[in-house]
Amino acid sequence: MTPPCKTFLAYVDAHQDEFVNRLGQAVAIQSVSGDPKLRPKVVEMGNWLEQQLKTYGVETQKIDLNTDDMAEPKLPPIILGKIGDSPDVTTILVYGHYDVQPAKKSDGWDTDPFELKVMPDPDGRMIGRGSSDDKGPVLGWINVLEAHHQSKLPLPVNLRFCFEGMEESGSTGLEKFLDGEIAKTWFAGVNSICISDNTWLTPRKPAVTYGLRGIIYYAITVSGPIKDLHSGEFGGMVHEPLGDLIHLLGTLVRSDGKILIPKINDQVPLLTDEEKALYEAIDFEIKDVKDAVGDSLVTTCKVPLLTRRMRYPSLSLHGIEGALSSNEPLTVIPHKVTGRFSIRLVPNQTVDGVHQLICEHLRNEFAKLKTQCKMCITKVGDGAPWLGDVTKPPFKAAKQATEDIYGKTPDFTREGGSIPVTVSLANKLHVDVVLLPMGRSDDGAHSFKEKLDKSNFIKGTKLLGTYMYKLSEQNI
Amino acid sequence: MTPPCKTFLAYVDAHQDEFVNRLGQAVAIQSVSGDPKLRPKVVEMGNWLEQQLKTYGVETQKIDLNTDDMAEPKLPPIILGKIGDSPDVTTILVYGHYDVQPAKKSDGWDTDPFELKVMPDPDGRMIGRGSSDDKGPVLGWINVLEAHHQSKLPLPVNLRFCFEGMEESGSTGLEKFLDGEIAKTWFAGVNSICISDNTWLTPRKPAVTYGLRGIIYYAITVSGPIKDLHSGEFGGMVHEPLGDLIHLLGTLVRSDGKILIPKINDQVPLLTDEEKALYEAIDFEIKDVKDAVGDSLVTTCKVPLLTRRMRYPSLSLHGIEGALSSNEPLTVIPHKVTGRFSIRLVPNQTVDGVHQLICEHLRNEFAKLKTQCKMCITKVGDGAPWLGDVTKPPFKAAKQATEDIYGKTPDFTREGGSIPVTVSLANKLHVDVVLLPMGRSDDGAHSFKEKLDKSNFIKGTKLLGTYMYKLSEQNI
Repeated sequence: MTPPCKTFLAYVDAHQDEFVNRLGQAVAIQSVSGDPKLRPKVVEMGNWLEQQLKTYGVETQKIDLNTDDMAEPKLPPIILGKIGDSPDVTTILVYGHYDVQPAKKSDGWDTDPFELKVMPDPDGRMIGRGSSDDKGPVLGWINVLEAHHQSKLPLPVNLRFCFEGMEESGSTGLEKFLDGEIAKTWFAGVNSICISDNTWLTPRKPAVTYGLRGIIYYAITVSGPIKDLHSGEFGGMVHEPLGDLIHLLGTLVRSDGKILIPKINDQVPLLTDEEKALYEAIDFEIKDVKDAVGDSLVTTCKVPLLTRRMRYPSLSLHGIEGALSSNEPLTVIPHKVTGRFSIRLVPNQTVDGVHQLICEHLRNEFAKLKTQCKMCITKVGDGAPWLGDVTKPPFKAAKQATEDIYGKTPDFTREGGSIPVTVSLANKLHVDVVLLPMGRSDDGAHSFKEKLDKSNFIKGTKLLGTYMYKLSEQNI
Repeated sequence: MTPPCKTFLAYVDAHQDEFVNRLGQAVAIQSVSGDPKLRPKVVEMGNWLEQQLKTYGVETQKIDLNTDDMAEPKLPPIILGKIGDSPDVTTILVYGHYDVQPAKKSDGWDTDPFELKVMPDPDGRMIGRGSSDDKGPVLGWINVLEAHHQSKLPLPVNLRFCFEGMEESGSTGLEKFLDGEIAKTWFAGVNSICISDNTWLTPRKPAVTYGLRGIIYYAITVSGPIKDLHSGEFGGMVHEPLGDLIHLLGTLVRSDGKILIPKINDQVPLLTDEEKALYEAIDFEIKDVKDAVGDSLVTTCKVPLLTRRMRYPSLSLHGIEGALSSNEPLTVIPHKVTGRFSIRLVPNQTVDGVHQLICEHLRNEFAKLKTQCKMCITKVGDGAPWLGDVTKPPFKAAKQATEDIYGKTPDFTREGGSIPVTVSLANKLHVDVVLLPMGRSDDGAHSFKEKLDKSNFIKGTKLLGTYMYKLSEQNI
């Protein structure tokens, strides 16, 4: 290991408490983007973060996403940062977000969600909203900057930062910004992107993430009668929208998860031996999900289970709007119902291709019903899948850095979920993205009692810094 | 027509305004049995009604349904009445209820729901909660009693009254009362029962109702994972309860209403020519239901449509509890969901027989899913179907009375819905029941702006009285 890196690591060790204190300051700012009343707090958090960057020598720019015709509440800014301009070293773009999910103590927190509570247990759980998602990882980079600035160590790479304040609310405004001139200027010369916004697969072993599933989310509305009817009066006389919708939803997926839409798997490549080896190497046991899934797994074999989560499409039904949803025994025939389901996409499926197959399938099945009801298909949202190339330098650097800091080869994982910004950035900048998680699978990112282990925060800070050094040693 | 009947009719004509005023007094008492806070008003209404009966020479008894171990709020009493004890004439039991559905002006009423508003239109709509269901019909009998009492006319039959105050809330306590000693004594010698608690099939033509469908209401719970899961994390790994439930619900009924449960129609008799003639004679047009059903009818032919409503079973899906029911695009995999559906029964189907077929079917279909999820079938409630014999004297009397008062032969109808007390009374007393509706199909009994036309109230009063005379002339 190079001496500058050693100095960096020593600084981190010596300043753990200050780092935790700073995370406490960040958690205390209630930057809940989903709550209009708290939107000013998100802006405050952006300002705070910009100040941190400036303190450690980073040039910043605050991007106002608001336009005159935009409704209240105002959008918080994107905070851009730039440090280093050497043509001889690689340039990493760091993406993170400074807004958080909502949290009320009554949701099940034992402590004030916006007061970081460090527990006296071996890993030092630090409980507070945003600790793991995503203030901890963002502050990991601030820690890296501080360590170098205070130790007067030059950074081994050029860094660019892009911190947004709307990630938990659909990243409003980000896409437009990425398409604009300012982004082009600020992100010119970027060679790779590093995002720390997911977690390890288990609480035990660090992970490097090289893939995400995409998604298409649907709302299928079936309507018939003018108003809700009484089943005593009209049962048997009418085509019932709920029955028709349930027939449609029943044609989508089998209980064992097999998707029944024709041709849906045509674009999904076969599992290669190399890939299989990656899944076999992953440290994963049934007990890691037992608390959540109980006995409902479709298989208890590791590789089929992991590939079902990470590399194959899946289709889940979420619910029905407009029908009876309480436990009152009402004999209503709902006149208009909307079923919601989503399909997770994987390479090489495309949003447009899958959407076409699903529409075709639904129209065919609806025609079979010979009903007088009407069907309307709405694509509520979508995001493409993403797959990185694990043989590329950023992944090698991430692997080596993890081995250095944790003494373990990381799990190479793909997430079953979607982080749309990853795909946006990868597509727009045409560079490699690596997801380098800081937290563990049990952090409870969107749940109550969200935590980040102190050990993950400190080692995670070292990991991010070391990643820079490892990547700077690679030829890219 | 006999002279006493003429005197009766003349009295009714001469006292229309007083009758309407009395209905106004009854409507003003907010006897909403479903609202615990208004339960004392139900009791007040019971007392008011008992006083009316006493005023016109009826012996009464107030039956307290409360027992020491019963929770608040207290049940309102059953009001029993008895007038006439001649062994030479027939004895009619009149059933009615003095409680009403809830009503708030904000539900869509233009007027105070508890202030009877008589409109200056040709039929004299009288708008107010309970006007049609069931205070109008109950007061129809009070009018009959008053007319005879004040005119010193002897009644042509013995009358017994059973007025309950919990009909809109499941008739709590009634069944137990009917099984007890007091009922046996009070209802000894009853030859037939008359109930006015439904409406004509259309706004145009009076009806006599000789059948009701029964019902079994189901809640089918499917559970799997320990808690709700995120479809990104777990989609594809687990058997999803909502998918399984939707497969089950999809096996129950076809879009055109055909019930798919094996053997379900085995007990349903074929339509006879006599029956078909009854349906053909009914004054019914598609436009009578067009405002409610739009274009969703499974057929536009009158007889198939009416028989689907009245004489064949039907199965309707009502909704799902425990799944996403809002329009938020959440990617949840619900861990436990309950589907609700009900089946309407007809003679000669039995609750037990149909229940067995449904359980068998659901278990077979569930087994086919090969799922790890668990299913639980709950029968939430049930009621047997009822069918009267239209060749019996009460129906002949009802027909003749209608022809006399309205100058029209009534539609002989069966209701698609259920009035459980009808079946209870018929089964317990082993006598004929006739349903002799007072209101029209557009009265909006359980809706806002409930009304009874003044013409129906006055002619309905005449109808009930004339029915007594007609029945007294028959040999039963």
